[in-house]
Amino acid sequence: MMARNTFNDTLLHFEIFRQYRFISAFAPKEHMNVKSADDVDFAKRGGVIPVVVQDKKTKDVLTLVYANREALAKTIETGNAWFFSTSRNKLWMKGEESGNVQPVSEIRVDCDSDALLYIVDSNKPMCHTGERTCFHNMVEKA
Amino acid sequence: MMARNTFNDTLLHFEIFRQYRFISAFAPKEHMNVKSADDVDFAKRGGVIPVVVQDKKTKDVLTLVYANREALAKTIETGNAWFFSTSRNKLWMKGEESGNVQPVSEIRVDCDSDALLYIVDSNKPMCHTGERTCFHNMVEKA
Repeated sequence: MMARNTFNDTLLHFEIFRQYRFISAFAPKEHMNVKSADDVDFAKRGGVIPVVVQDKKTKDVLTLVYANREALAKTIETGNAWFFSTSRNKLWMKGEESGNVQPVSEIRVDCDSDALLYIVDSNKPMCHTGERTCFHNMVEKA
Repeated sequence: MMARNTFNDTLLHFEIFRQYRFISAFAPKEHMNVKSADDVDFAKRGGVIPVVVQDKKTKDVLTLVYANREALAKTIETGNAWFFSTSRNKLWMKGEESGNVQPVSEIRVDCDSDALLYIVDSNKPMCHTGERTCFHNMVEKA
C-alpha cells in the first residue's frame, strides 16, 4: 500500500513537472525572490520612494503613495499600511484619522529596489473621497 | 409585442437599479469621472509623475515607472505605453528595443491628479529581467 502510493505520487509529480515545463516554455518567467527591508533602495530617490497599494481580493490598484525607511519599518512591525506624506512631510498610518486602517498581507519590492507594492486586505475606502480606489478618473482624448 | 418588450425592459432596469442600490449602500462609493490629459498635474512633482502599470487580464501590478506630459500625449496618440526615464532623462516607448510593446487599454488618473495608471493588454514581459512583472521580490522581516 505504501509502495503503491509512492508510485502514484511519483507519477503525479512527473505530470506536474511536465505541464510546468510546457507552460513555462511559452510564458514570461515567473519566480519570487525574498528580500528584506534593508535591500530597499530609499537613497536612490532621496529617501522617499513610491508605494503602489493593491486590493488583495479584487486586485484593483487603490492608490499611489510614498514611503521612507521608517514607514516601511512601521508597516512590517504593525502589519498596517504606513506611509510618508510628501505634502505634510510626516509619517502617517492610513486610517489614523478616518479609521480606514489597511492591513497589509504582502509587501513586494521591484526589480531595481526603488518602488514598493503593498497588498492590502480590507474593503474600507482607501481614498479620502470615500471611494475604495483613488484611481476613479478615466483619462480620455481631449 | 413592442409594448411587451418595453415593459420587460422596464422591469429589468428596475431590478438592476434596486440591486445596485442595495449593493452600493454597503460598499465604498464607486464611480468613474472622465478627465483629459490637461487635467493631469505634472507641475506638482516637477514635471514627472509616477505611473502604475497593471495587466488588464490578470490585474497584476507590472511596474512603477514615470511620465511627463509628452509621454502621456504619446501614449494617448499611439495607444502604446510611453514613459519618461528618470535615469536616462529621456522619453521612451516600452518595447522600442526589446519588442515587448505594451498596448494601453485604459488610462486613469488619481484623485489629486498626480499619479497615472496604465492598464495594458499584453502578455509580454514588462520587466527587463524577462518576468511579466517587475514586482517579483517579497519583502520579509529580516
